[in-house]
Amino acid sequence: MNEQNKEPLLIVGSVAFDSVETPQGKADMALGGSASYASIAASYFAKPQVVGIVGEDFESHHMERLHGHGVDVRGIESVAGRTFHWKGRYHENFKDRDTLETALNVFQHFNPTIPDAYRDTRFVLLGNIDPRLQLSVRRQAKDATLVAMDTMNFWINTERDALQEVLKQVDLLFLNDEEAMQLADEWTVLAAAAKIRQWGPRYIVIKRGEHGAVLFGPDVTLYVPAVLLTRVVDPTGAGDTFAGGFLGHLSRTGSLERANLAAALTWGTVMASFAVEAFSVDGICGLSRHDIDARRNHLIDLVRY
Amino acid sequence: MNEQNKEPLLIVGSVAFDSVETPQGKADMALGGSASYASIAASYFAKPQVVGIVGEDFESHHMERLHGHGVDVRGIESVAGRTFHWKGRYHENFKDRDTLETALNVFQHFNPTIPDAYRDTRFVLLGNIDPRLQLSVRRQAKDATLVAMDTMNFWINTERDALQEVLKQVDLLFLNDEEAMQLADEWTVLAAAAKIRQWGPRYIVIKRGEHGAVLFGPDVTLYVPAVLLTRVVDPTGAGDTFAGGFLGHLSRTGSLERANLAAALTWGTVMASFAVEAFSVDGICGLSRHDIDARRNHLIDLVRY
Repeated sequence: MNEQNKEPLLIVGSVAFDSVETPQGKADMALGGSASYASIAASYFAKPQVVGIVGEDFESHHMERLHGHGVDVRGIESVAGRTFHWKGRYHENFKDRDTLETALNVFQHFNPTIPDAYRDTRFVLLGNIDPRLQLSVRRQAKDATLVAMDTMNFWINTERDALQEVLKQVDLLFLNDEEAMQLADEWTVLAAAAKIRQWGPRYIVIKRGEHGAVLFGPDVTLYVPAVLLTRVVDPTGAGDTFAGGFLGHLSRTGSLERANLAAALTWGTVMASFAVEAFSVDGICGLSRHDIDARRNHLIDLVRY
Repeated sequence: MNEQNKEPLLIVGSVAFDSVETPQGKADMALGGSASYASIAASYFAKPQVVGIVGEDFESHHMERLHGHGVDVRGIESVAGRTFHWKGRYHENFKDRDTLETALNVFQHFNPTIPDAYRDTRFVLLGNIDPRLQLSVRRQAKDATLVAMDTMNFWINTERDALQEVLKQVDLLFLNDEEAMQLADEWTVLAAAAKIRQWGPRYIVIKRGEHGAVLFGPDVTLYVPAVLLTRVVDPTGAGDTFAGGFLGHLSRTGSLERANLAAALTWGTVMASFAVEAFSVDGICGLSRHDIDARRNHLIDLVRY
């Protein structure tokens, strides 16, 4: 796709360094954060514009990595101090993980402001950050066509009120199945989605890891299986990548029709499958159109009866 | 479908009484066992013939329940003693469960013999029982077109050698994802299925509970999501029901073509969704063609992009 023709997608989230250990190896101080994963994934479909914050240790080659993928980094503020750092270790099943360290660093002073250059952007992703920050950005993005948000169990446990408030004001929510059931206090994803949709978001996309994803919306329910992989290296960022690919496709097409939502689900799924095959953002950098299309064809073939 | 036109499907397995407690309630000494679930599920598609064993406490109304569904019960031997009894309790997540009691009773003397009347049956399901018994039946079913087997972690742990031996001699294996990974000592279902297929079965159907099922075969991989339910009452027998619906469809059509395998997956999935909505076999008894078809249409709609 011609870069000139790409539609913008505003992404607010963390830009971070991750130190991750999995049964397949480890990575130290590697590029991570919800906005990094989401923007690189989205870059194959749209023109991502990132609002984030980094410290002095975020060297130019890191910024270049985002920029090299067509990511508009003008909204990434560089300030004195160190970049957000997360350190974690995955268990052998690649699902459970222990957080060994969370150093918010400059992120604790993050006060996201949408630059003037991004004000007209119609599609907005509030990446997985503090719901109070998501709420602030939501209020700035008055004229957006669609505002989506991602969240996780940490915020459900610690910032429930702010989370409920931002839920009222978004169009689409991403979260995983356990989190959906926890948030809604229900035991099936169907019941959980129905309840959460009453609180605000018209659409809910429930991510189920290696089991795929399901979308609930007005008069539409769609299921996409995950790509079957022989080997997983690092699940970090899979959800952010999914959201980036999904919204990248939506902002490219601008439509919420069933077929387009389904396509968005498949692109999100495909991008997430690349993300987990390597540490950091390595799996989603520098992919060819052919690689991406081939994997999507394989995915669609799984459910072609 | 006209009863006269139904093709036979031979099912060997347990006929039991289950006492089950779940977060939704409990059932005492209710009809259960792999052959009961599988044969009732299969009865909507084929003419099930059951080989099993029961005790004196298996009253005529229980037998009538199977027979009333068109199940050929001539292969169910009645002997002195009590019927196999399993007692268990499910945790709140409906996945983990504790076995409180397993009384094999007459089942410990079970020496399954295919009656002459069933000798020509081309499709055979070796239900989830001791692999040494499965092997014995496999050897008797010399002229079968397709022999499928189900198994579980208990047999992987206790009868590994016999399990490997019967695997060599079957065409299709059903098992759940954790069991597949345990059996193959692999961390993805794709890698597990590839390894296990080298040991014998051309086809593997990996059951993933509320996440659906995936089939691996020569040049074919198919994924079917589970039916989304608002409420689960009792997961007992869901896997047996799945296998019964799947093989019921296959024996009806006699084809292993891609479209037919896909259809079998959907029928198995639909039948399993009814099974978990009630205790014992209550969820799969007396269903109308309309109910079954409507649910299948809903399922297929989930993946109609």
